[in-house]
Amino acid sequence: MGSPRKKLQGLVAATLTPMTENGEINFSVIGQYVDYLVKEQGVKNVFVNGTTGEGLSLSVSERRQIAEEWVTQGRNKLDQVVIHVGALSLKESQELAQHAADIGADGIAVIAPFFFKPWNKDVLINFLREVAAAAPSLPFYYYHIPALTGVKIRAEELLDGIQDKIPTFQGLKFSDTDLLDFGQCVDQNHQRQFALLFGVDEQLLSGLVMGATGAVGSTYNYLGKKTNQLLEAFERKDFSSALSYQFCIQRFINFVIKLGFGVAQTKAIMTLVSGIPMGPPRLPLQEATREFTDSAAAKLKSLDFLPFADLKGGNLGAYS
Amino acid sequence: MGSPRKKLQGLVAATLTPMTENGEINFSVIGQYVDYLVKEQGVKNVFVNGTTGEGLSLSVSERRQIAEEWVTQGRNKLDQVVIHVGALSLKESQELAQHAADIGADGIAVIAPFFFKPWNKDVLINFLREVAAAAPSLPFYYYHIPALTGVKIRAEELLDGIQDKIPTFQGLKFSDTDLLDFGQCVDQNHQRQFALLFGVDEQLLSGLVMGATGAVGSTYNYLGKKTNQLLEAFERKDFSSALSYQFCIQRFINFVIKLGFGVAQTKAIMTLVSGIPMGPPRLPLQEATREFTDSAAAKLKSLDFLPFADLKGGNLGAYS
Amino acid sequence: MGSPRKKLQGLVAATLTPMTENGEINFSVIGQYVDYLVKEQGVKNVFVNGTTGEGLSLSVSERRQIAEEWVTQGRNKLDQVVIHVGALSLKESQELAQHAADIGADGIAVIAPFFFKPWNKDVLINFLREVAAAAPSLPFYYYHIPALTGVKIRAEELLDGIQDKIPTFQGLKFSDTDLLDFGQCVDQNHQRQFALLFGVDEQLLSGLVMGATGAVGSTYNYLGKKTNQLLEAFERKDFSSALSYQFCIQRFINFVIKLGFGVAQTKAIMTLVSGIPMGPPRLPLQEATREFTDSAAAKLKSLDFLPFADLKGGNLGAYS
Amino acid sequence: MGSPRKKLQGLVAATLTPMTENGEINFSVIGQYVDYLVKEQGVKNVFVNGTTGEGLSLSVSERRQIAEEWVTQGRNKLDQVVIHVGALSLKESQELAQHAADIGADGIAVIAPFFFKPWNKDVLINFLREVAAAAPSLPFYYYHIPALTGVKIRAEELLDGIQDKIPTFQGLKFSDTDLLDFGQCVDQNHQRQFALLFGVDEQLLSGLVMGATGAVGSTYNYLGKKTNQLLEAFERKDFSSALSYQFCIQRFINFVIKLGFGVAQTKAIMTLVSGIPMGPPRLPLQEATREFTDSAAAKLKSLDFLPFADLKGGNLGAYS
Repeated sequence: MGSPRKKLQGLVAATLTPMTENGEINFSVIGQYVDYLVKEQGVKNVFVNGTTGEGLSLSVSERRQIAEEWVTQGRNKLDQVVIHVGALSLKESQELAQHAADIGADGIAVIAPFFFKPWNKDVLINFLREVAAAAPSLPFYYYHIPALTGVKIRAEELLDGIQDKIPTFQGLKFSDTDLLDFGQCVDQNHQRQFALLFGVDEQLLSGLVMGATGAVGSTYNYLGKKTNQLLEAFERKDFSSALSYQFCIQRFINFVIKLGFGVAQTKAIMTLVSGIPMGPPRLPLQEATREFTDSAAAKLKSLDFLPFADLKGGNLGAYS
Repeated sequence: MGSPRKKLQGLVAATLTPMTENGEINFSVIGQYVDYLVKEQGVKNVFVNGTTGEGLSLSVSERRQIAEEWVTQGRNKLDQVVIHVGALSLKESQELAQHAADIGADGIAVIAPFFFKPWNKDVLINFLREVAAAAPSLPFYYYHIPALTGVKIRAEELLDGIQDKIPTFQGLKFSDTDLLDFGQCVDQNHQRQFALLFGVDEQLLSGLVMGATGAVGSTYNYLGKKTNQLLEAFERKDFSSALSYQFCIQRFINFVIKLGFGVAQTKAIMTLVSGIPMGPPRLPLQEATREFTDSAAAKLKSLDFLPFADLKGGNLGAYS
Repeated sequence: MGSPRKKLQGLVAATLTPMTENGEINFSVIGQYVDYLVKEQGVKNVFVNGTTGEGLSLSVSERRQIAEEWVTQGRNKLDQVVIHVGALSLKESQELAQHAADIGADGIAVIAPFFFKPWNKDVLINFLREVAAAAPSLPFYYYHIPALTGVKIRAEELLDGIQDKIPTFQGLKFSDTDLLDFGQCVDQNHQRQFALLFGVDEQLLSGLVMGATGAVGSTYNYLGKKTNQLLEAFERKDFSSALSYQFCIQRFINFVIKLGFGVAQTKAIMTLVSGIPMGPPRLPLQEATREFTDSAAAKLKSLDFLPFADLKGGNLGAYS
Repeated sequence: MGSPRKKLQGLVAATLTPMTENGEINFSVIGQYVDYLVKEQGVKNVFVNGTTGEGLSLSVSERRQIAEEWVTQGRNKLDQVVIHVGALSLKESQELAQHAADIGADGIAVIAPFFFKPWNKDVLINFLREVAAAAPSLPFYYYHIPALTGVKIRAEELLDGIQDKIPTFQGLKFSDTDLLDFGQCVDQNHQRQFALLFGVDEQLLSGLVMGATGAVGSTYNYLGKKTNQLLEAFERKDFSSALSYQFCIQRFINFVIKLGFGVAQTKAIMTLVSGIPMGPPRLPLQEATREFTDSAAAKLKSLDFLPFADLKGGNLGAYS
């Protein structure tokens, strides 16, 4: 990995946390996971222990170990390893932030606390600042996902003057469809000093046209290659192709949403596509049903996301 | 106006309903309003008696008269006059639909009923079909605005097979930020038979990139010219300019949202910009404060939306 | 009917609007309906054209005719006939209020407008006052049902000083489970000048202990007798019996809620229990399924709400 | 403390976690806190590390130490010490459950996980069972607070057959106003085997009439004495007095809610009333303002909850 101040850009995979059938972390496949992302999906950045990684369902100790494994395995292969260190407990969040710095991660990200909710920008900034201060040399990203947290403070308000409060602030993961808010984040980011990463995979194109500098998402684990094609088409102003890629991705996401789509289902899909066993999720999530996985597999094939041959072999093992 | 089957495209202004100081409809300025839209804003389509027009706050009798006035005044000037005929009472909605046909409107639009809410697609379709059937020769548009109605039925599901149920279906006004839903509407509209009109003015560019064929909104009453520039830049693939226009519009909308922005405030702004007195809104809306109007005026000037001279003269009368 | 200033107390049935199979109002059974309520259920007050009566799904003309029929048929039989005249359009609401006065109704009630929502107490009061003023001799009741309207203005705040603004204010229908709000309404109603009617049938006992002076609800159409027993037990401080009646009622309501319970289902149940055909609801409601009605019938019998014999004869006609 | 199977009844104080000005746990005052509850408020049960105790804002290590201190200080003074061990991470929750057993707590309670939300009863039961199984000898209580967790699974459904799944299940803290749900919990608790503790202090009377066997709440820290009078009046069927006590309590709660009321404000009030310094809350909560505390103090005095003399001395130190 390069210098920590290198700009985070392009696709960032929100990584899954592989687990064994009995619910323990399966550290042994993370190296393989790194190689798969880089070689098969063309994705060189990861966001570890976030929503997709079941970060908040893990113990602090597990989160530390997982972070370490990604940093270790990613060395010289990944561009950036960002560790999500958000927690309901400020103390635990600070501990994780310091740990991320100690192990040489490239950045930390923090979700807004969501049990007691910060009721205005200042309180949220205070909370984030206390975490950031525990890792004073690491780039800090805010993880904005109001639909999950219920914290409605607008990102563009948060950004206004944030570097005075949080000198390590480097950008945000914007997981919302309010493109007025996102657009006004871009609009005020005159000198392009911040990474404004769009986090709604199924409508990435709308984020790009509004000025996103990159994207973080769970589908980049297995649709990274296709999404990179979308990015390239957008870059060369071939909007017709970009929209075509976007619709193809939408068809898949729209299909699985109707079946019930979450982290458990993402684990099943990733197992299927990559052949790397992601295992079951941890409670309160429940393993995807066989019916879901079969339907998703058929859809992937019909969309040419998954060659028929890929379904042979060990892929099916994860849910059988 | 041309043939009713002509495709509805470009900008459609969601018209305000001008009122006198004592709360009656001010029919006398609608002719002037038509001319202003066409000549000053370059907007040749209108959506009458919708949310912006306070349609649901009017009596059935008032709605009929307003529709007639727009059709009459718009003749040979406007391309299309679409009348919103949605109501909580199916009977009243049907009466309004038939009336729209009788007076020669170019189309009708219907919002989902929102007191008792249709709990699945079939019930919603049944309701819409009963209204559409009362005007069997008029193009029918569905007005999708889930944040206001609480009816969460996805538009792309509604569109699937809708012409079998509603032969006059011609498209929708999509007033939501879920661009997966909107994208999948576009994706299935292979033959471009439907008008898919985006209804979130402050993020129009994201709707365009996802395939919108036009836009309906309240800001096109006074920002139509600027938005037409955005459309033109988008057409010629000058995305940098398009984004620049979008941000300029966003700055204004973002500013007034923070002050409290709704139909009452839109009336005050339109009065200010056009010089045509829109009057107060009807209860339960309350007239915009003088403080709001002053702030909005200053913002408009700072963004070059409003030449200084325009503030002289009669414009201030509406709220003084 | 007696003097309009007579206190509204005891049970008030929120009446259904009987319809024919082809969706027109079935005025012919309203006389029978009155007799049934009085003789079989011991209920002598009605709340007409409210939520249960599908008031907002009717045309203004239908609402007028229905009101007239209830006033006419209720003469010398019912204690009070209160007409709900709430509407999204202030003008239509005023027309209905004046009509209620003209026909000799005992009071009017108004729901908060809920498309454009009043955003503070003053705006809501202004709206209500304008309606009340159209019937200056009739007792005025506010219909508080925040879960349906989304208008969260607390009832106890509304009551504070309301008679200065609305001289005819006589009380409210409190359809919410916030018993802090309800308790503080009771607490400030020192001179017991207002009727504070509880509107959550399934937890009436909790409203009584907090000081309710009566109750309005849809279940009093067919569970009025049982609920009167609850009231009597409460009056004589026999709480054990009161709770026993309450639980019996809860078992039924809890059961049907799980099947999907609304006005359509209430129509099916009322048809079943009373033998008076209530007919289907109007769109956007959909007729209760045969499966629902069969299950509800079995539950009613198992709870001794419905003697076996009652299922013989014409009752089944409504849904067959 | 007595046998762990002793029924939990009467008032249970949801304890605050005292902190020093620099945000560390102030263990030194917990002994004094125990004495205050028992002697001044007549409250002999505590619910530790719940919402009021900022349990989810603490580190696991802090939660363990606080639990220990309450068990130690409460010995021979308190009837029952219940430790809330809920956490987003099942592993951490299990660790805390086992710890509670090790230190001799009288029971454990668990909130529904609320980041990933269990989407049906079975998943929720599975999660709770895994925690309960880590402390197989301790009574287990479910902490039902849907407004905070967003988990809408009804308590009465959860209770149905729960002892087959969770043999140590002993009851629940029902912090909701849905008294149909609560009533149906009571209705199915035929043999009164479970403690059904009502958790909405401001409407306790409505919970009692519906069959609550006790109550857990934050206001019992400082209004325990007054609430015990309410309980006694209810027991002797003196409903008029019970209602009078309830209204008195409501007046205070209603007053502070309008000022903004939460755990931070409860800390300030408790400091004021008890003279024991509770200190500031931890981020993301913010210390109550001086203005709040002054207003609350004046209200307490006006309601005779706080003799004038009590405001002298050290009480004011906590917020000055």
